[in-house]
Amino acid sequence: MSKETNQQWGGRFSEPTDAFVARFTASVDFDQRLYKQDIQGSIAHARMLEKVGVLTEKERDDIIRGLGEIRIEIERGDFAWSVALEDVHMNIEAALTKKIGITGKKLHTGRSRNDQVATDIRLYMRDEIDLVLAEISRLQQGLLDLAEKEADTIMPGFTHLQTAQPVTFGHHLLAWFEMLSRDYERFADCRKRVNIMPLGAAALAGTTYPIDRAYTAELLQFDAPAGNSLDAVSDRDFGIEFCAASSLLLMHMTRMSEELVLWTSAQFNFINLPDRFCTGSSIMPQKKNPDVPELVRGKSGRVYGHLMSLLTLMKSQPLAYNKDNQEDKEPLFDAVDTVKGCLRAFGDMIPAIESRKEEMREAARRGFSTATDLADYLVRKGVAFRDAHEIVGLSVAYGIEHKKDLSDMTLDELKQFSDTIEQDVFDVLTLEGSVAARNHIGGTAPDQVRAAVDRGRDLIAARGE
Amino acid sequence: MSKETNQQWGGRFSEPTDAFVARFTASVDFDQRLYKQDIQGSIAHARMLEKVGVLTEKERDDIIRGLGEIRIEIERGDFAWSVALEDVHMNIEAALTKKIGITGKKLHTGRSRNDQVATDIRLYMRDEIDLVLAEISRLQQGLLDLAEKEADTIMPGFTHLQTAQPVTFGHHLLAWFEMLSRDYERFADCRKRVNIMPLGAAALAGTTYPIDRAYTAELLQFDAPAGNSLDAVSDRDFGIEFCAASSLLLMHMTRMSEELVLWTSAQFNFINLPDRFCTGSSIMPQKKNPDVPELVRGKSGRVYGHLMSLLTLMKSQPLAYNKDNQEDKEPLFDAVDTVKGCLRAFGDMIPAIESRKEEMREAARRGFSTATDLADYLVRKGVAFRDAHEIVGLSVAYGIEHKKDLSDMTLDELKQFSDTIEQDVFDVLTLEGSVAARNHIGGTAPDQVRAAVDRGRDLIAARGE
Amino acid sequence: MSKETNQQWGGRFSEPTDAFVARFTASVDFDQRLYKQDIQGSIAHARMLEKVGVLTEKERDDIIRGLGEIRIEIERGDFAWSVALEDVHMNIEAALTKKIGITGKKLHTGRSRNDQVATDIRLYMRDEIDLVLAEISRLQQGLLDLAEKEADTIMPGFTHLQTAQPVTFGHHLLAWFEMLSRDYERFADCRKRVNIMPLGAAALAGTTYPIDRAYTAELLQFDAPAGNSLDAVSDRDFGIEFCAASSLLLMHMTRMSEELVLWTSAQFNFINLPDRFCTGSSIMPQKKNPDVPELVRGKSGRVYGHLMSLLTLMKSQPLAYNKDNQEDKEPLFDAVDTVKGCLRAFGDMIPAIESRKEEMREAARRGFSTATDLADYLVRKGVAFRDAHEIVGLSVAYGIEHKKDLSDMTLDELKQFSDTIEQDVFDVLTLEGSVAARNHIGGTAPDQVRAAVDRGRDLIAARGE
Amino acid sequence: MSKETNQQWGGRFSEPTDAFVARFTASVDFDQRLYKQDIQGSIAHARMLEKVGVLTEKERDDIIRGLGEIRIEIERGDFAWSVALEDVHMNIEAALTKKIGITGKKLHTGRSRNDQVATDIRLYMRDEIDLVLAEISRLQQGLLDLAEKEADTIMPGFTHLQTAQPVTFGHHLLAWFEMLSRDYERFADCRKRVNIMPLGAAALAGTTYPIDRAYTAELLQFDAPAGNSLDAVSDRDFGIEFCAASSLLLMHMTRMSEELVLWTSAQFNFINLPDRFCTGSSIMPQKKNPDVPELVRGKSGRVYGHLMSLLTLMKSQPLAYNKDNQEDKEPLFDAVDTVKGCLRAFGDMIPAIESRKEEMREAARRGFSTATDLADYLVRKGVAFRDAHEIVGLSVAYGIEHKKDLSDMTLDELKQFSDTIEQDVFDVLTLEGSVAARNHIGGTAPDQVRAAVDRGRDLIAARGE
Repeated sequence: MSKETNQQWGGRFSEPTDAFVARFTASVDFDQRLYKQDIQGSIAHARMLEKVGVLTEKERDDIIRGLGEIRIEIERGDFAWSVALEDVHMNIEAALTKKIGITGKKLHTGRSRNDQVATDIRLYMRDEIDLVLAEISRLQQGLLDLAEKEADTIMPGFTHLQTAQPVTFGHHLLAWFEMLSRDYERFADCRKRVNIMPLGAAALAGTTYPIDRAYTAELLQFDAPAGNSLDAVSDRDFGIEFCAASSLLLMHMTRMSEELVLWTSAQFNFINLPDRFCTGSSIMPQKKNPDVPELVRGKSGRVYGHLMSLLTLMKSQPLAYNKDNQEDKEPLFDAVDTVKGCLRAFGDMIPAIESRKEEMREAARRGFSTATDLADYLVRKGVAFRDAHEIVGLSVAYGIEHKKDLSDMTLDELKQFSDTIEQDVFDVLTLEGSVAARNHIGGTAPDQVRAAVDRGRDLIAARGE
Repeated sequence: MSKETNQQWGGRFSEPTDAFVARFTASVDFDQRLYKQDIQGSIAHARMLEKVGVLTEKERDDIIRGLGEIRIEIERGDFAWSVALEDVHMNIEAALTKKIGITGKKLHTGRSRNDQVATDIRLYMRDEIDLVLAEISRLQQGLLDLAEKEADTIMPGFTHLQTAQPVTFGHHLLAWFEMLSRDYERFADCRKRVNIMPLGAAALAGTTYPIDRAYTAELLQFDAPAGNSLDAVSDRDFGIEFCAASSLLLMHMTRMSEELVLWTSAQFNFINLPDRFCTGSSIMPQKKNPDVPELVRGKSGRVYGHLMSLLTLMKSQPLAYNKDNQEDKEPLFDAVDTVKGCLRAFGDMIPAIESRKEEMREAARRGFSTATDLADYLVRKGVAFRDAHEIVGLSVAYGIEHKKDLSDMTLDELKQFSDTIEQDVFDVLTLEGSVAARNHIGGTAPDQVRAAVDRGRDLIAARGE
Repeated sequence: MSKETNQQWGGRFSEPTDAFVARFTASVDFDQRLYKQDIQGSIAHARMLEKVGVLTEKERDDIIRGLGEIRIEIERGDFAWSVALEDVHMNIEAALTKKIGITGKKLHTGRSRNDQVATDIRLYMRDEIDLVLAEISRLQQGLLDLAEKEADTIMPGFTHLQTAQPVTFGHHLLAWFEMLSRDYERFADCRKRVNIMPLGAAALAGTTYPIDRAYTAELLQFDAPAGNSLDAVSDRDFGIEFCAASSLLLMHMTRMSEELVLWTSAQFNFINLPDRFCTGSSIMPQKKNPDVPELVRGKSGRVYGHLMSLLTLMKSQPLAYNKDNQEDKEPLFDAVDTVKGCLRAFGDMIPAIESRKEEMREAARRGFSTATDLADYLVRKGVAFRDAHEIVGLSVAYGIEHKKDLSDMTLDELKQFSDTIEQDVFDVLTLEGSVAARNHIGGTAPDQVRAAVDRGRDLIAARGE
Repeated sequence: MSKETNQQWGGRFSEPTDAFVARFTASVDFDQRLYKQDIQGSIAHARMLEKVGVLTEKERDDIIRGLGEIRIEIERGDFAWSVALEDVHMNIEAALTKKIGITGKKLHTGRSRNDQVATDIRLYMRDEIDLVLAEISRLQQGLLDLAEKEADTIMPGFTHLQTAQPVTFGHHLLAWFEMLSRDYERFADCRKRVNIMPLGAAALAGTTYPIDRAYTAELLQFDAPAGNSLDAVSDRDFGIEFCAASSLLLMHMTRMSEELVLWTSAQFNFINLPDRFCTGSSIMPQKKNPDVPELVRGKSGRVYGHLMSLLTLMKSQPLAYNKDNQEDKEPLFDAVDTVKGCLRAFGDMIPAIESRKEEMREAARRGFSTATDLADYLVRKGVAFRDAHEIVGLSVAYGIEHKKDLSDMTLDELKQFSDTIEQDVFDVLTLEGSVAARNHIGGTAPDQVRAAVDRGRDLIAARGE
């Protein structure tokens, strides 16, 4: 095995690689995932080499044909990956040379594994980001549909997990929508910086061959060739930025998950998750566990970890390429898989949420959730806000003592705390009145929810353009 | 103290806050930094309240005047901050009420500390990002000037910290320029998402007052009001995104620092840092330590740490505002200070770098750095790349054994490994020939460096527009 | 200012330090916190130097007296710290020399700032760890007392936040006790590795003076002098290990906090936190927010961040001391403050928790929490566990449909699912029967809780020995 | 598939698990690694159940026989793992029941998957920690042997990567030894907290069966059963602590790696790594890249990341078991593999390091590395240290200007800076004199290196006892 390995490096070495070292330093077990992009990049490189006269038309065509056959073999599972050949690039090149002879070796003219792998991973990330963007849109669409359905459903709004003010369930779901809109933007921004072509940087300094980088970039639909060869082979920003965007996304999903877990608890009992998204217990037959949100919440850890992993990896690396960089792939691949899996699970599950409207409403009714409305009422009658706040505070203290919500008190009881209170106070102490009154952009009023749903749909529609 | 504190919350509480708890939960020690933005936001809010009829013109003017006076007192150091008043908002509001009477309390109509603090911090971040962007541009300008000066200076290019191929020092500096261009873009992208106005979200659900959020947003130069009130008061994405962008920036600066430290070592001896950027040793009088790059390298830790801190903070928080969020400020403030300090230090230091051209050149000459050029030469003569690679490998092995660089060998010696080699080989084995031959966009050729400097200048110029 | 700075480094420098650089690289703003340990270490060093004949008795005594005066000045707030003198060490040394003349300079014989700061910080960490250990014990004592009081209180035990089986509240509190016992051990283990003396390592290689490190170590109550000088000045493991132990502690406190927040919500309503540990809302007068647990939960972020910061800091640093290491202090200091503050807040708050026994019991009664007991009952009657599980599952499904808990069903209803069920089933379906039956070490039975409290008290008592 | 899955949970569910959800939540792909420990734990559980009368002798023997067969099937690769059966536990239990009938189901009496998986992973971690400890000892042994061989080899000692004072290479290697000794201790401390048995905690509250936990713990060589069932099923401290110890270890290895990479560069050229630990370049035939240290340096990222992943995972989880915890395994498994791989690679490579003594010595000779010795010489002659420092500083400035090292100057040249300097100064300016003079515990003198090697061997020998 080692014999074969050393062939790649020529005659400078006096002893074969240690067998454990060969395994320890090989990447083919995980980087074979890049085969499609490796072949795609090689085909573009071959076309460019022919265009500038380094390859003949026949050579180019042999290469393209050979690579096409290899791709089919790989996808059929017929390709024999070799650890001795270190990585996906060497494996494919060796297979090509075996297939089409000496011409296969010419493919490597004017490039190096350093720019090749950097190109492959960018092509890969571009493809994956597009899938992530599509999944975010799908999940957002599901949220909009559900929010529209639940635009009038009243639930308690919480701060500090204490009942604060009544809100509409649709409004709450749209808070999630907003989070995801920022995530969408971040992935799209990241994509801009991914879509730059390292190919042509060669090992680190560029190449002496008369390459046409603009042509290769065009073939591969890159926005531009990278502007500096040393940077091109050593830059892994895009991986870190992807993990940062993913960490924010997963953070948002932990917040949604936390709420889903709370809401499915017996204590909250706000929603039902269909059985198909839950699992049971091997010992407690009554259990129906919200496994999907719990697992997604847990998966935040791995994505945060991968972000930290890549930031650590790059810290203090001198230019240009160092072997350390090989460690960029596994965290990135796992981040990609995790993000797509979590989005898919939520994209399927969210539309299936069933609200328990009565329980939500009852929870909002309790807990003095319209206390702010009483304060606002007093202010509108001319009481200063801070004084109104104190009047309401005393009313609430009375309510706690006598186990009465504000709307359950008589006018006389309320009047103990302020003479300003009149019969019309009961209009503002209803839940419906409370939510409807918050009728400005971003407010919880059902009409605002419906308007926000419309804006959200327009936003998603505009993405496709 | 606690008595005063509890006044803010009205009559629901039966005992005063524990003294240690009051200190433990207060934020005024660090959030007073936001005083300017707090006043700025309050003034806009007051203007809007007057516009919609909640305040009279006189009330609005009293508030604006009072806040203006408070700002002056704070900036003069005459303001008495009180921990009992918890935070910057309560401190300023209490001072205002003391100053202008009951009208001061009306300022809080239609808002809450939840949307107020979220607005303040966004205004603050927007200001700071603008400073960061300016510092990045300044540092980049310094790099361009130096790169232009060093466009023809030859040094070894490294991969794996092994001499790989000759490059120009200007080209190397431009790799740093590229990193910083991505950083600039990321901060600019972050700014877009910072510049959204939470004000109007009130505690969590919006307000029953007839507020005009578009007007307030316009006054404060926000791009738009936040679209969902629950999200607006609980979103801290912008802080995380800022720390992520900062982590990438600091990571880049560790790479530059690592190289500066290497290059000032006796072993490399590539550059000199002027004494004013170095410090000495209390025990070893001969030492001149590159403290600035070392310290900047070390400061990456705190920025990575703050990123992780904020990601952890937000994990699993249910909506909307929770007290946990108070912990967002210190990491963010320290990240801002660190980023600005590091950029300033580098912005001053980089233009003062003096290259040691002879040492750089000599290092490039040794280490078989033109081996790739020999290989390319062979390929141009018709040898397949992988075969050429082997021929060169054997030549290098011979060179190591006989302590001769490739350009030091005779033609006969070279011909041992391939008959294809002729007298003209010595043209490609020179350092100047090697770098000049990499003459395509992104390549290390001096002409390409100069072209890249021009592109860089255009880029920076376009930012100002 | 810079002139003074440069005096420390002698004559090798040709220009003064840049003013911004002097501030950027100075540490005295934060490392002055180490003054006590710096003086303590210097006194021991002076004693040792006298013992080995480098100082005279008079010189030693002058130094000790001078340092004693400086300590008093510092503690009185009369000491003028100077940024120009960079750090706590230079500030104190300069003051000493001003006070006692040339002898002050002799104190630095046989040591360097590199081993001096490493010694100071270890002395500091040792002191702080002792305080942390004491606070953990105090908090644990509070948990034991509360657990004893609540040994018979029944509440629902949760998995997946779904009601699983009834447990006792005392048992739940003892789970927290166990976490803290591991934390205690980890800090104690960390202390072992902190308590090693770097002094004598000098700059990096040891010193040519005939120092007696064992004697200095004895004076400072270190377990041993560090075994290798290069390692001694560059090792910051103890700071990382402290942050790792702190991260685990804070993680545990987030779990406790999460539960405290849940339990004080209207939905759970399991406990009451006295008003003095809560704060109110500026807009919603009815709110009583569990600020202390929320803030502690949030503070996990900063401690995790500091851990990551220090790990990043040390990554890839070549030996021995590098300026990067100056960045070790602020994260460590903040971690120390945070850990002590959180422990103190919980140590005060936990004993004041008031359980709402009826609400807890009612929550346990609902939710089919004795389903496992029914399954066990069936197994004891000879049914295989997995079959019993299925029988109970069907009973639960029936119960959900008919809104009846298991203990509310008639014998006939239960017999629908298995003929094996007899009248005695109702004994095992009671909450008291359920918890009492888990009567083995680590089980939730009240007797086991009391036994565990006794074991816990023995454990704490043994620590003091 | 889903049908089969749901059988585990009995009759409460009305629809099958979604196919994607089943895959998304299954763990068998990665937790099958625990098969050995799962079987080991089950055998002990069966023995205990028989001892307490829950199983007959025959049932116990059938179970043990069946599990033994399953183990063989797994190790032969004959076992068909099923995702539908979710995890390693269900897969093995299902196979057992198929093999020995209804008795297989009885094995689950008195336990739950919650305590089962917690037990399996602790058994696994215990085994792996023992392997890690052995690998650390092996690497340390290699360092001791090399240090002994290089006890007299002189090299420059660096601070700030500037030549500071001469040290011995043996001494430098022993700094690494010290780091690893602390790592060893930390893993050993971690093992104490791993070796506690969760089994018997059942789902969360203990079990109603008359289990004998002490007996099971004894069979499995656990130090004790866990003291609280809720804690036992939800504690993942040991995984975090393992990752923290691993992060410190890897951090140390990045420092070693950084130095190995530096030392193999053409600029330092201090050592040679045999070819079998290096790899070459596909484009630059002269390259011999120190891939192993580079890759190890890079692998720090993944271990730091896993630490952060697990800390994030556990943040804010309420008791007891939550599905999030399933995410503990992959980071932990990868941390284990990484740690073992890196230790093995270094354990093989370190003893093969060949020092280039002449280059090292020459580097030490240059750079004024004996400046401190000159200062000490002056102090011994009665000059105050800080004055001596200044005299030496001026000498060094002169040396830099005239390109002369201190030992190259004439007595007259030296006397320019202080009359105190006499002929005997040249004794202390030699490298050998310099290192030999640092002759105290922890100092760099060759004799101290040999003494430290002896102490190190005793330490390792004592571990085996």
